[in-house]
Amino acid sequence: MELDEKFQAIQAENAPGQEARKSADSLDSLMLGPMLDGTPVDFSHGDVDAFAPTPGALEAWQSGFQSGGEQAYTEYRGDASIREMLAGKLAEFTGREIHSDSELIITPGTQGALFLAYASTIGAGTKTAIMEPDYFANRKLAKFLGGEMAPVPLRYQDGTAGRGPDLSKLKAVFKKGVEVFAFSNPNNPTGVVFPRSTIDEIAELASQYNVTVIVDQLYSRLLYSGEEFCHLRGSHKAPDNVITIMGPSKTESLSGFRLGVAFGSAAIIDRMERLQAIVSLRAAGYSQAAMRTWFNEPDGWLGQRIVEHEAIRDDLLNVFRDAGLTVATPQAGSYLFPELPALAVDHLTFVGLLRRQANVTVTPGTEFAPHTGSSIRLNFSQDHASAVAAAQRIVTMVERYKP
Amino acid sequence: MELDEKFQAIQAENAPGQEARKSADSLDSLMLGPMLDGTPVDFSHGDVDAFAPTPGALEAWQSGFQSGGEQAYTEYRGDASIREMLAGKLAEFTGREIHSDSELIITPGTQGALFLAYASTIGAGTKTAIMEPDYFANRKLAKFLGGEMAPVPLRYQDGTAGRGPDLSKLKAVFKKGVEVFAFSNPNNPTGVVFPRSTIDEIAELASQYNVTVIVDQLYSRLLYSGEEFCHLRGSHKAPDNVITIMGPSKTESLSGFRLGVAFGSAAIIDRMERLQAIVSLRAAGYSQAAMRTWFNEPDGWLGQRIVEHEAIRDDLLNVFRDAGLTVATPQAGSYLFPELPALAVDHLTFVGLLRRQANVTVTPGTEFAPHTGSSIRLNFSQDHASAVAAAQRIVTMVERYKP
Repeated sequence: MELDEKFQAIQAENAPGQEARKSADSLDSLMLGPMLDGTPVDFSHGDVDAFAPTPGALEAWQSGFQSGGEQAYTEYRGDASIREMLAGKLAEFTGREIHSDSELIITPGTQGALFLAYASTIGAGTKTAIMEPDYFANRKLAKFLGGEMAPVPLRYQDGTAGRGPDLSKLKAVFKKGVEVFAFSNPNNPTGVVFPRSTIDEIAELASQYNVTVIVDQLYSRLLYSGEEFCHLRGSHKAPDNVITIMGPSKTESLSGFRLGVAFGSAAIIDRMERLQAIVSLRAAGYSQAAMRTWFNEPDGWLGQRIVEHEAIRDDLLNVFRDAGLTVATPQAGSYLFPELPALAVDHLTFVGLLRRQANVTVTPGTEFAPHTGSSIRLNFSQDHASAVAAAQRIVTMVERYKP
Repeated sequence: MELDEKFQAIQAENAPGQEARKSADSLDSLMLGPMLDGTPVDFSHGDVDAFAPTPGALEAWQSGFQSGGEQAYTEYRGDASIREMLAGKLAEFTGREIHSDSELIITPGTQGALFLAYASTIGAGTKTAIMEPDYFANRKLAKFLGGEMAPVPLRYQDGTAGRGPDLSKLKAVFKKGVEVFAFSNPNNPTGVVFPRSTIDEIAELASQYNVTVIVDQLYSRLLYSGEEFCHLRGSHKAPDNVITIMGPSKTESLSGFRLGVAFGSAAIIDRMERLQAIVSLRAAGYSQAAMRTWFNEPDGWLGQRIVEHEAIRDDLLNVFRDAGLTVATPQAGSYLFPELPALAVDHLTFVGLLRRQANVTVTPGTEFAPHTGSSIRLNFSQDHASAVAAAQRIVTMVERYKP
């Protein structure tokens, strides 16, 4: 594939966080009605001012800085003593042993982990199954690397029997020679958590067809009441070639440190480290020290964070459902993915108008699948009252722009 | 190219910083004579305990952390106000204007900048001229991306007329269709600085043959007395498609923050940002705040740092030359690249023995060019006395292992 084409595949104009680069002037002529005042809310990512970084993260960083060269220049795969600590915690969390020396790498964010895992397993022509909708970078990465995409639909609306991937479709593409299957669980952007039976079946199919599985479990700690999370790597049917990706950027609000981990198959981790050596050397040395707070938070901290997010989730679901919008109930994580009706402007324009006219930033659904352009994604890890008020402004805008 | 082959091309077993992963037991049977005691010195990278991070970097990071979400979630290309500040400083330093909005990106280290610049310009079959010897990642990156390598010899020994690339060879490969020329100046591992006439000629040839130039100027601030540095982008003959890469990891000892910048052609910077969005999102947000200290150090700080490095350089040159070893005089930076005579063991084994027997870590010359295996690279940004003692141990070991 030509470079021009590759870079066409990864355009970032509508990516979350890049809104500041867009000029909004052209939208003024399309605007209906007056401006909607209110505290600006940027739902494109979580607000680390509303949900602060884990207690102790600042001190851990400072202590890393003070320890000097040892912490600045770690192995490319990350500081050995931090890897050892993490391997223990993550083995306990996921229900399967991790050898800290060979089966875990610390990366610059989970985005770094995703890139390294994809680039270590997907080359020109590699048949790659991805879910739709799913985290936007999955498709972009696979395309950039020259992978041949085999999309698998995700059933995510409430009441759908067996929320999760269409398993018959998954089996069909595995049969046709898929080599890599990459997906997020909990799903980004819908918050769907796959049931145990689904995870076991994916594990079994992957073993049977010798498919490498890359599973992004970034949100698996922020699990709402009554929900159960099943780790694919811990399934009794799990194949060897599984890479699990996590990180403290979301639930723990440590995104500003750029930290992630990938763990699993030693052969893939080894490739990932070689690649990290030429991509960015290592996760920032001093940042790595903040990992010492991960899975090591004060008693009750995680529970409280879940309760607070669940309360925001429930209020936003009510706001959208009262207005007649369809929106699936997230079982974990902090994303909502409501569907908008047909409007007098196209949905991408409407996303621009939300920002320009109502001080609300959301991510357009086109980023997650070609067919989910009428949805918008909200990261509701925000100040509670501001988030509710912003959701109400979205509803007002939807009413106003109905054709 | 198959994935297996690509990852073969980027093996990191002998890369600097990875020595901890090597088992040294097998060397014991080859050891001649007793252990050589002395403070361990790791010449594979600079010692940030001997040369501390820029004054104010810690406080700048803390202030970034305190400012919260704004600093955690910057645009992918980096915080706008920091880019603006850097564009001004770097334009002044390099003698050519930089538009902060479109022509500069902040990256995770200069390694991150190199990766993004290479991957934005080199695809399968792209003819790429690289210098030999040069920074090891250059070759690895170009190979990994599928580039077709056209090596250009570097003349680096003292007394060589016109230290720098063999310009007739460079012209010949440009004529044969080279699209990208990537090199470091000051050169890593030799410390050679290209004279103005050479830079002008490279600029002119690149314009004539429409070659994109990626120039890694990581060490251009640490310039020794009597030397002049010429920025290719500032040459009156410079083509538009030049990307210059710098960062505060070396002279300023900020490697633990993982910060770099690339600046130049807006079209290439735009690609680099798209790629950064899927590779690691951004340089760690809080780390970016430390950039506010760059080119903004206390009066006299840089001059003092240069004086101290120059003194170490001169002492090490004397140690090696007194022992009859050939070593070029670095004009800038903190690398020495002495050449060893034939020994009773191969040079890679000798590097292992230096570490095992003499507490001295160096990087084998094979990392920098196929034909420089008899040299070793030392980063002499170290405690002065320890570095001299370690160099003396290297000389003792060379004497001991002479056949």
